[in-house]
Amino acid sequence: MTTIDTPRRPVYFDCDTGIDDSLALAYLLASPEIELVGIGTVSGNVSAAQAAENTLRILALAGRGDIPVAVGAHDALTRAFEGGAPHVHGSNGIGEVELPESGLTAIDLDAAQLLVRLSHEYEGRLEIITVGPTTNIALALRLDPTLPSRVVEVTAMGGAAFASGNVTPVAEANIWNDPEAAAELIAAPWPVVLVPLDVTVENTLEESHRQQLLDSDRPLARAVGEMLDFYFDFYVELYGRRSSALHDPLAAAIAVGGVVATNAPLVDVVVDATHGPGRGQTICDLRGQRLGPVDQTGAHVRVVLGTDRPLDAHLVERLTASV
Amino acid sequence: MTTIDTPRRPVYFDCDTGIDDSLALAYLLASPEIELVGIGTVSGNVSAAQAAENTLRILALAGRGDIPVAVGAHDALTRAFEGGAPHVHGSNGIGEVELPESGLTAIDLDAAQLLVRLSHEYEGRLEIITVGPTTNIALALRLDPTLPSRVVEVTAMGGAAFASGNVTPVAEANIWNDPEAAAELIAAPWPVVLVPLDVTVENTLEESHRQQLLDSDRPLARAVGEMLDFYFDFYVELYGRRSSALHDPLAAAIAVGGVVATNAPLVDVVVDATHGPGRGQTICDLRGQRLGPVDQTGAHVRVVLGTDRPLDAHLVERLTASV
Repeated sequence: MTTIDTPRRPVYFDCDTGIDDSLALAYLLASPEIELVGIGTVSGNVSAAQAAENTLRILALAGRGDIPVAVGAHDALTRAFEGGAPHVHGSNGIGEVELPESGLTAIDLDAAQLLVRLSHEYEGRLEIITVGPTTNIALALRLDPTLPSRVVEVTAMGGAAFASGNVTPVAEANIWNDPEAAAELIAAPWPVVLVPLDVTVENTLEESHRQQLLDSDRPLARAVGEMLDFYFDFYVELYGRRSSALHDPLAAAIAVGGVVATNAPLVDVVVDATHGPGRGQTICDLRGQRLGPVDQTGAHVRVVLGTDRPLDAHLVERLTASV
Repeated sequence: MTTIDTPRRPVYFDCDTGIDDSLALAYLLASPEIELVGIGTVSGNVSAAQAAENTLRILALAGRGDIPVAVGAHDALTRAFEGGAPHVHGSNGIGEVELPESGLTAIDLDAAQLLVRLSHEYEGRLEIITVGPTTNIALALRLDPTLPSRVVEVTAMGGAAFASGNVTPVAEANIWNDPEAAAELIAAPWPVVLVPLDVTVENTLEESHRQQLLDSDRPLARAVGEMLDFYFDFYVELYGRRSSALHDPLAAAIAVGGVVATNAPLVDVVVDATHGPGRGQTICDLRGQRLGPVDQTGAHVRVVLGTDRPLDAHLVERLTASV
């Protein structure tokens, strides 16, 4: 798709790397439509520091040590980091896989500062993909409330519309981990594409896909194939088989355009940041959608409820393609 | 189904009569499995007083002036009544249909007092069907916290599990109108069957059914057929055709056994009674149900998500059957 006349779209990626974050990062690195111009890390699946270490090792494996990585928020806006999700992602966040040391280090800015700087450098062109708690995005908005005017679009993996949550009955982990930050992201005046559990749980990788990754001649493909071994075990309870949801890679693929959101109405979305039983819920106003998707006047959040095709084969193809 | 050896099951019915309440009441009056031993009214679709007037006229039309009707709470536990839903049910609650005066009057107890009295009279046998805001039930629980020990089961039309709400994005009208009362009903130690919008909106009456009601030789069937004219107009926006949801009658039919809940797991349910954006939501813990309905240990609320058959033909058949 890339030609001399079509420069790659600049993307800032915010992540809590994480197994599915690693898949998303590998996908973005393999996508000619976009250029990763900076990565920020945040505590979520693992600490922001561990997420940065994982990210740097992945970049080294892909030969992309040129991409700046900034460590972001260790704690959520109103709550201290509580240790992440080692039962889902392993104690190191990448399924106990030991990647080679990278020889790389994070830059000397925090993630919010990096994001604001990139928004000037790529003014009117920068896209944001965020697949962890959105603390860094909220901090960047606080640092510079004019940020949205320079950003094309924010694609965020998070929330649940009709679907059940995965931390509480109604809250998904990224939102649950920092509801106040999510509320600030959603309230800011930029176009948001929300990729909730409703679609991410319907997209899976199976053992056959994992084998294709393991059989690849690309080191990063093999590495994520190894990571998936741990992740597949976690999902047996949900799916009844070794398999995995594709939360973060689906958000990445929708942002890139490799998968197209076909049912994705623009609707009012409010994040429940109370301390009641609904804390962390993305309340999406999907009333009146029975006869088909209807955009609400004035809404700026697109909630993805359906896509044109499953992600699985496309994801594996990108990750295993010869460079 | 009724035999000399199987006395009818005694039912207390609580309603805010209402067009679909009228359908539910007509259904209950036509159901040989149960005996309506008392009716309480509450403000919701209309005021508690208007609901009682409507109820008495319906009972008179059915020749059942013997059933005691008690006027219940005019105001919700923490909020004054705000005038009901004349755009849905008409200014008189029954679609502007003028039923003949009944010559009947409400009894000299309020609904909560009637319910407590009936719980003693029919101790260990009484069933409750509630299809409006649950203020009267909460007041009865406050009047006598031992009430649940004498009641077999409470079937409540209300809430939304996966479905959107009909007042806010997440709140259904009966719960929205008195979240504190709903929270008290749900928290009380009795078996509850919650019949939410997820199933009530999937059950409709169509113009052909309405015609069958209008053609009946039973005055009450004709009366509800006339009421539906107004109700059908309201639902054009939802369904794209003149039609109506069967909220209250579905709860009645499930309670009676005319329709059987086939997907109805016992799960933890919490009512959001905060003043945040989720106020009035029934938060049902439906995680882990992907592979099929699973009852949660210790839960006492059954959330109906699927039934064995549509209600429409069964409802019309009961309402139009010769006595």
